[in-house]
Amino acid sequence: MKHHAYFKTAAETPPPLTLSITRAVRFDELDPLSIVWHGRYASWFEEARMALGDHYGFGYLDFFNHGVTIPLKKFHADFNRPLTLGLPYRVTARLCWNEAARLDYEFAIHNADGELMSTGYSVHLMIDRAQGVLVAKPPFFEDFCRRWRRGEVG
Amino acid sequence: MKHHAYFKTAAETPPPLTLSITRAVRFDELDPLSIVWHGRYASWFEEARMALGDHYGFGYLDFFNHGVTIPLKKFHADFNRPLTLGLPYRVTARLCWNEAARLDYEFAIHNADGELMSTGYSVHLMIDRAQGVLVAKPPFFEDFCRRWRRGEVG
Amino acid sequence: MKHHAYFKTAAETPPPLTLSITRAVRFDELDPLSIVWHGRYASWFEEARMALGDHYGFGYLDFFNHGVTIPLKKFHADFNRPLTLGLPYRVTARLCWNEAARLDYEFAIHNADGELMSTGYSVHLMIDRAQGVLVAKPPFFEDFCRRWRRGEVG
Amino acid sequence: MKHHAYFKTAAETPPPLTLSITRAVRFDELDPLSIVWHGRYASWFEEARMALGDHYGFGYLDFFNHGVTIPLKKFHADFNRPLTLGLPYRVTARLCWNEAARLDYEFAIHNADGELMSTGYSVHLMIDRAQGVLVAKPPFFEDFCRRWRRGEVG
Repeated sequence: MKHHAYFKTAAETPPPLTLSITRAVRFDELDPLSIVWHGRYASWFEEARMALGDHYGFGYLDFFNHGVTIPLKKFHADFNRPLTLGLPYRVTARLCWNEAARLDYEFAIHNADGELMSTGYSVHLMIDRAQGVLVAKPPFFEDFCRRWRRGEVG
Repeated sequence: MKHHAYFKTAAETPPPLTLSITRAVRFDELDPLSIVWHGRYASWFEEARMALGDHYGFGYLDFFNHGVTIPLKKFHADFNRPLTLGLPYRVTARLCWNEAARLDYEFAIHNADGELMSTGYSVHLMIDRAQGVLVAKPPFFEDFCRRWRRGEVG
Repeated sequence: MKHHAYFKTAAETPPPLTLSITRAVRFDELDPLSIVWHGRYASWFEEARMALGDHYGFGYLDFFNHGVTIPLKKFHADFNRPLTLGLPYRVTARLCWNEAARLDYEFAIHNADGELMSTGYSVHLMIDRAQGVLVAKPPFFEDFCRRWRRGEVG
Repeated sequence: MKHHAYFKTAAETPPPLTLSITRAVRFDELDPLSIVWHGRYASWFEEARMALGDHYGFGYLDFFNHGVTIPLKKFHADFNRPLTLGLPYRVTARLCWNEAARLDYEFAIHNADGELMSTGYSVHLMIDRAQGVLVAKPPFFEDFCRRWRRGEVG
């Protein structure tokens, strides 16, 4: 299925980690044109991103329990086709490898026919409650990345 | 202007405290019928309620700084006429006297012609982070209520 | 499981129609106290209500396709226990019988242990795009109610 | 004041059209970290964008009344500093000249001290209800652009 690669990664880097969820448009997400209002895509992307983090053990609460928050530095969305009421969509989050203390996520939304509706990305910093912006990954996530590099996760 | 009195108060109680704000409908508050989606009235009522609390010194942060949160126990809205894009509305919050450790707010929304669009109410408990639900008002708010009863605020 | 009966119905009326969905708290529904902000319950109740209407053939789009919209006249919520991140909740909508051209819904949210978190209700009018507020049910819904009364739905 | 120029425009093009509004953070916009949740910036940018359009006579309703809708093709936000409760922020929208039937907006949010909090951009297509995506600007907006180019608006 078609994706858009927002982040360029060197050939030898570990492949991205991917997870998809299914979500249906709710009435309160629609705008006067009966399509999902553009600002609500942040919630769609975030739900897939958090499911991916929870699945691999580096979710919002995993970071939080290690004293680290992961606020967004960048958010981007490209809208191809509108989302309409009642149909289920597949939302895919993809974490791209990064050496730095930073999370690079790519997103794609497909309908049931596999058509690409929207894509996007978000970039997250890691902030330690005591030290501020981290330049190195926190140990628990560094451990995870070591296993990711060795192909031991998934 | 017409209000609806949701809370019955005895004749000798201090008159309610009132504050109005003006707010215009934003595009992202509209539903497919181009009227404000009913769930967003909670934001309209809350904005007036918080402005009232801040004005008198018992706002969200005033309670918070005394270790007390004021979660909702009840929320109610009656919808008379729909709110539409672009026009400004007046949102009025009214705090009704209550002997207990509880906040009883009434709300009304009027258009520029003074027509009543919606009314509602909310009931808030007071929760101390250490002790749980309070049965007596926290001292700073008890002080305020004493002055309210003596007609010294407003 | 404990419910709250907001609408009093005579003994001989048809039993309510009921449907439950499961929904998990999303990060963007949380407030600074890490609990679901009270205004978002409208979305929770609505999702269960729309699933019930879709299941029985009198959903938002069924009414819409017959030229009828069903705006809220009243909304009410009672909050017992806060909803927190990550856990799934069961949201139950219950349509109570009404002779008039009006929809009376009751709602309840339970956690996985069956504890009652919140209840509420909403009342909806029926508005015909040509004639305004309806005093009689539109024919397709009157047909449904006839079958409901005879115990032929469910 | 510092802005970020997302769109490169040739030297001879008309200068951008700019409008600022003031907006304060509401409680329901906060996340568990007591900062504005990233997805709500779409509403902040949109409010300034719509005020700019309304000011110059090519707002949402102006396009709509000419049978044209202006859905987003792209949305982007860069977050520098978090927005917190109670303080007013200035939100600036800037429409950059484009020969095509497309609207290119840049956004900036500053605090009361003039510090840059966030920037972003959105790109909008023009869709005619009859013909689909427009390749030429609709006549009323072409007229406006002619006056914009001659320096007759502002």
